[in-house]
Amino acid sequence: MITSPDNAQLKLIRKLQRKKARAETGLFTAEGEDLVGAAEAAGWEAEVLLEAGEDVEPELLDRVSALGSGSRVVGVYRQRWAEARGDLSVYLHGVGDPGNVGAVIRSAHALCDGPVILGPGCADPFSPKAVRASMGSIFARPPAQSGFGELIGAKIALDAGAEIKLGAGSLGVDAPLVLCVGAERGGLPPELAAEADLAVAIPLREGGPDSLNAAMAATVGLYELANRISADV
Amino acid sequence: MITSPDNAQLKLIRKLQRKKARAETGLFTAEGEDLVGAAEAAGWEAEVLLEAGEDVEPELLDRVSALGSGSRVVGVYRQRWAEARGDLSVYLHGVGDPGNVGAVIRSAHALCDGPVILGPGCADPFSPKAVRASMGSIFARPPAQSGFGELIGAKIALDAGAEIKLGAGSLGVDAPLVLCVGAERGGLPPELAAEADLAVAIPLREGGPDSLNAAMAATVGLYELANRISADV
Repeated sequence: MITSPDNAQLKLIRKLQRKKARAETGLFTAEGEDLVGAAEAAGWEAEVLLEAGEDVEPELLDRVSALGSGSRVVGVYRQRWAEARGDLSVYLHGVGDPGNVGAVIRSAHALCDGPVILGPGCADPFSPKAVRASMGSIFARPPAQSGFGELIGAKIALDAGAEIKLGAGSLGVDAPLVLCVGAERGGLPPELAAEADLAVAIPLREGGPDSLNAAMAATVGLYELANRISADV
Repeated sequence: MITSPDNAQLKLIRKLQRKKARAETGLFTAEGEDLVGAAEAAGWEAEVLLEAGEDVEPELLDRVSALGSGSRVVGVYRQRWAEARGDLSVYLHGVGDPGNVGAVIRSAHALCDGPVILGPGCADPFSPKAVRASMGSIFARPPAQSGFGELIGAKIALDAGAEIKLGAGSLGVDAPLVLCVGAERGGLPPELAAEADLAVAIPLREGGPDSLNAAMAATVGLYELANRISADV
């Protein structure tokens, strides 16, 4: 039973709240029974696994919690990255909010066979907030990394200004498809959008917001493209 | 210039972090230039409007911030509720996360003409987290309140176990439509789902999560139904 805050495992867990420490060690944490259970279900072995009351005094575990939720269990895992391939994947560019990155990891796990591919400027998918927002899908479906130019397949840019509306008819492209989504306000940089095979807009009402939240937009796009792939795009 | 933390306006702003105080006063706060700007754009007059450096010492405003973001401006507004009507609305039941409630308010503003209708067990849409997640749409499109039984129009329940898949063909119902969405894990209570005019599932891959996050599911449902209304359901 760990009874000292100076314990090396506790210090590691606390340290992994910082992006730099995650990058240096290649490790990350998952807090709570649901996430640790998702790791186990996906066959991941924890490097460290501390249960309050069993392995460590509860208040010491609370003190190293990144989410302030008083987790009963915290696991430390080695980061894994997937290959950027699949019939349908989603590429994120400059999506800096970890909650959005995690939410898209979950949506992609539910809706498509390929991973979330992270381009420049995206939040760390292994940050505590992103791991929590993924609701465990980060274990079943680890993310990939790639530049826009290296993406394999037809690139479909979500672009609020595009003339072609999502859902309005056949898109005339064949799988593999990569849905490309930019940051909340700016969208994809114009030079990338211009290189996409197709640009499509989610039809929005006049007078409303110019765009959906990035995670919402990615989820709607994946839903529509997944339906089209099963209906032969 | 307010220089005392005992100032009545500052105390009001701090008090409005609590749900009980919002219910008793009928007021709520919006923090930050974007939200205050959205209120102004929608023609809402603030009951109190404090700008750091102009009206109040910046560190005093920071101390009453609900979001801990060091807002430069905080406004206090009177809550408004809309009528539950429109060609397409969304009803939430037991959606307890304020971020999800706010996100759906934004998506509904972008995708449909009706409001978000809040049933029992939903988070307060006027909480600071919900207001922020709405990205200002709460001002342009205030929520409504209703019981399930009082909803006007064809009720379409999102139900992960439904045989009819969203996007697979005509739904055979006429507007007005109300998309009905339950809590993340439990979904709509079975007795309500049974009373819906139609139950549909978002098609998800086998082996993935059983459901999407409630806000994601509501957004996908609104997107699909909005497209169908414009294509005559």
